[in-house]
Amino acid sequence: MPRFKIPDITIERLSIYLRALSKFTDDTILSSQGLARLVGTTAAQVRKDLAYFGEFGIPGQGYRVGKLREEITHILALDRSWRLVLVGVGKLGAALLAYPGFRRKEFQIVAVFDNDPKKIGRKIEGKVVQDVEIMERVLPEMEVKIGIITTPAEAAQDVADRLVRGGVKGILNFAPVRIMVPDEIKLKNVDLSMELEILSYFISYQKRREMKYEKSER
Amino acid sequence: MPRFKIPDITIERLSIYLRALSKFTDDTILSSQGLARLVGTTAAQVRKDLAYFGEFGIPGQGYRVGKLREEITHILALDRSWRLVLVGVGKLGAALLAYPGFRRKEFQIVAVFDNDPKKIGRKIEGKVVQDVEIMERVLPEMEVKIGIITTPAEAAQDVADRLVRGGVKGILNFAPVRIMVPDEIKLKNVDLSMELEILSYFISYQKRREMKYEKSER
Repeated sequence: MPRFKIPDITIERLSIYLRALSKFTDDTILSSQGLARLVGTTAAQVRKDLAYFGEFGIPGQGYRVGKLREEITHILALDRSWRLVLVGVGKLGAALLAYPGFRRKEFQIVAVFDNDPKKIGRKIEGKVVQDVEIMERVLPEMEVKIGIITTPAEAAQDVADRLVRGGVKGILNFAPVRIMVPDEIKLKNVDLSMELEILSYFISYQKRREMKYEKSER
Repeated sequence: MPRFKIPDITIERLSIYLRALSKFTDDTILSSQGLARLVGTTAAQVRKDLAYFGEFGIPGQGYRVGKLREEITHILALDRSWRLVLVGVGKLGAALLAYPGFRRKEFQIVAVFDNDPKKIGRKIEGKVVQDVEIMERVLPEMEVKIGIITTPAEAAQDVADRLVRGGVKGILNFAPVRIMVPDEIKLKNVDLSMELEILSYFISYQKRREMKYEKSER
């Protein structure tokens, strides 16, 4: 285990804290309780998450918003600009290109690729679609570090291999299939139907809890 | 705090275990170590996650795949069928309607809504788009429990309010904005750019770790 191993979920919460902080002016002081309430967690959790990275608070008061925002931005490496490519410009790929959340200065989609001759050379959402066959060759000179896969399942592994050979360090995979990458590459699988399963659990949960209470009282 | 409160992350992992189990026959015996390796966690974590819900394993051996799959399916309430609506049939909405992961018997999108007169009455991805104005009225008779919001940010809160009044119990929000719902409604915000922030952290992490080691050795 690496010495500074931080749980994924802590990193996810940092990202959520950053969103919550954007609603306040730099000089606002927020207690860990206040920040916790904004994002639906506990004050202890907020303190623990931030303590991994140092001591950002003012003892007995809380966190100055400007300072905390700056620190989290730095921790998440959002004080630089990342160059991305997107592979597979089908419906989901095109929707992501138009997604406002992806249009940020920290994340620039510098090229898009597909293997469909009818799409190659055409402009989709303002990007000229390039042939996936040339990807490995052009990626290194583009200094791309992140690849987004929005291909059908059967193409995803081949595209991932090409991205890795082209020098990307992180992959966001939307294809509904598990892919394999070398250990040093960070892979995030986005499975949108998993979110539905989690909703399914929680909606049933209320009912189950009542049933369990009844049982335990018998 | 409710008595049987289970962390969200445990539920997410159940969903991941279920995917991993689908590759094995019912009679396979998997150790917690084996299951852990498949999904990239620890054996202790697997045992802890499952222990919330009972004792499913065979002492000293592990879990029988068929039995474990059945139990997790039941826990996640995937042994029933959920009726869903999707609101906002723009690019992302249409892409989700076509997304293979959403075409499952457990999750049936029974209706889609929009407020654009040019879309209302038209078929998009095989679904006739209905006027969002009639949504509250028709939802109860459709027995819909889950709503998916894929509208622009400025419409999301109004749509959420209508979904709640129409009787949904869970909302999956893709609009890039925080929305408010009553406590008894489960809300999952899907922020696709958050995934990019997490990648950003992990790609920078290797480099930082090396720097920290160097510092601590001085």
